[in-house]
Amino acid sequence: MIPYCSICWQDNRVRLLDQRRLPREEVYLETGDYRQVIEAIRTLAIRGAPAIGVAAAMAAALGALEITTDDSAEFRRGFQEILREIAQARPTAVNLFWALERMAQVAESHAGEPVAALKERLVREAQAILKEDDTINRHLAAHGQGLIPEGARVLTHCNTGALATGAYGTALGVLRAAWEAGRRFSVWVDETRPLLQGARLTTWELGKIGIPYTLIPDGAAAFLMQKGQVDLVIVGADRIAGNGDTANKIGTYGLAVLARYHGVPFYVAAPLSTFDFALTDGSQIPVEERAPEEITTLWGEPVAPPGAPALNLAFDITPNELISGIITERGIATPPYPSSLKPWKRLTG
Amino acid sequence: MIPYCSICWQDNRVRLLDQRRLPREEVYLETGDYRQVIEAIRTLAIRGAPAIGVAAAMAAALGALEITTDDSAEFRRGFQEILREIAQARPTAVNLFWALERMAQVAESHAGEPVAALKERLVREAQAILKEDDTINRHLAAHGQGLIPEGARVLTHCNTGALATGAYGTALGVLRAAWEAGRRFSVWVDETRPLLQGARLTTWELGKIGIPYTLIPDGAAAFLMQKGQVDLVIVGADRIAGNGDTANKIGTYGLAVLARYHGVPFYVAAPLSTFDFALTDGSQIPVEERAPEEITTLWGEPVAPPGAPALNLAFDITPNELISGIITERGIATPPYPSSLKPWKRLTG
Repeated sequence: MIPYCSICWQDNRVRLLDQRRLPREEVYLETGDYRQVIEAIRTLAIRGAPAIGVAAAMAAALGALEITTDDSAEFRRGFQEILREIAQARPTAVNLFWALERMAQVAESHAGEPVAALKERLVREAQAILKEDDTINRHLAAHGQGLIPEGARVLTHCNTGALATGAYGTALGVLRAAWEAGRRFSVWVDETRPLLQGARLTTWELGKIGIPYTLIPDGAAAFLMQKGQVDLVIVGADRIAGNGDTANKIGTYGLAVLARYHGVPFYVAAPLSTFDFALTDGSQIPVEERAPEEITTLWGEPVAPPGAPALNLAFDITPNELISGIITERGIATPPYPSSLKPWKRLTG
Repeated sequence: MIPYCSICWQDNRVRLLDQRRLPREEVYLETGDYRQVIEAIRTLAIRGAPAIGVAAAMAAALGALEITTDDSAEFRRGFQEILREIAQARPTAVNLFWALERMAQVAESHAGEPVAALKERLVREAQAILKEDDTINRHLAAHGQGLIPEGARVLTHCNTGALATGAYGTALGVLRAAWEAGRRFSVWVDETRPLLQGARLTTWELGKIGIPYTLIPDGAAAFLMQKGQVDLVIVGADRIAGNGDTANKIGTYGLAVLARYHGVPFYVAAPLSTFDFALTDGSQIPVEERAPEEITTLWGEPVAPPGAPALNLAFDITPNELISGIITERGIATPPYPSSLKPWKRLTG
């Protein structure tokens, strides 16, 4: 139904939509070089926690294909090295480490097989991660879509559609499922500074689905809530600690506080791969600090005086007590979280 | 000390710094045509509530000089027409109407004088408004500077410096006075979407004064407060109702809610000319809606899909109960406001 591929595997190459050029151009990067996929993750040509996981797995598969040895032990050493390299691409999205861990396990648990067979397995695993992502997101969306009432005005932040996940989308997937179920509603799209994923990507995806939206500056959300123009907030997540504390795009925590102040429900939608049960709370989630130039320049033109100091934190941490529900492929967890999340801890452990 | 003129009167012409081109270029507009000053207000070449007042008065003076009749009654009719034209430039900043009212009163109360004398009086009145603005802001800053503790991390939104006021600045004037009194502190500058007055102008002014600052996206303020990195918030105002409800740049209301949630003091700094005692509360303040292109394009390049709907409200309304203090040239008003503001109502009435 949606005529674009965020990331796919074709003839032992990765094909991915260069999201930096949206909405102006729909340009695809095609490469057989895993280093180019790392670069695409690092420079945000592909972004969104689940999509980063898929891209990391595909980078690992490309890397495996590049290793020339026939010696199985040597292959695994080389592959480990490549996994370590990919792990450096971005620090916050746990899906990246989760996907690399899956790839590592495939290599480990079939250590005795010939290198060619191992490579084949790794390529299949990367493709399986993409396919599972689609299935998981559709389940997640099916669980969450009932939360979107007819006529609702929904506010969302950043981009959580198929572009962000490789396939159906998380928070945007919930909206898409509600729309496909015949519900009619509209969306306030936070433009999401500094990189404008809302303005560039979420608008583009909502337009493709046909859901009506209105773009706003991030600072306008509070006023709309004050005027009773927001019925619920739904966002994605980059990492969720065991107690439900959620790392997501900078600006999310402020929205959660504002939603609480105005009595507006605030939902997080994320697959279980986004959970990091090794962390007991959000204070343990590392927050990526990106280059100040993402704030001080736009399209390469300065918007601040030369050398202006800027702090560019990619994420913030929303404490569990501000979250009305966490929508996953297994259902919707509600407060109190450490206990409502416990069954899923066993699933992912 | 600060080597730039925001707006001044020279040889019967207006000279104003084109703020749209900052920080890239320091370019001045010089004109004897009041319509060009209206255009400068409308297109935000000059902005900031007090500066708009000064610019409106100077536009009125230029307009008066353009009227060719020697007949005093005909002159006053023409002048009234010009005042009406200037009043259309922007709807929210009450200083604009306040300044035009002062100009109208000069014309009315000296109705019997020859036209040449009237013109002279109007030119002097416009210059007096600028000079008073400087004096008033310095008084305001002197009252407020004690609120900035040594070592404080102050957060501000939009631009409230000399650029915004014609002279010393309001919220930024308070910071400047604290700095000139030897206090040392730093400033978090909200970039202030969509027009980036924080990134473009506040950084530029703080840099000229020498106050250390760090630029942040608007959405990062909440996270900094959560981490205990913000000791107080100080902003300006575009219009203040009789009960203290305050219209200011979109994003201000959200900051006020976040400040309350985190126990951070939230101050408004504005001269009495910003008060509109005719309004009993903020719901009566008209909120300007500007062109969606200010959100959907940057430097003329689209950042959203073609035709993407966007809502561009220039201001929001912060209710009085979220404001720790309103700093004026007469002192600092504190809650409860309708009563603490009452003495000033008489002054401006």
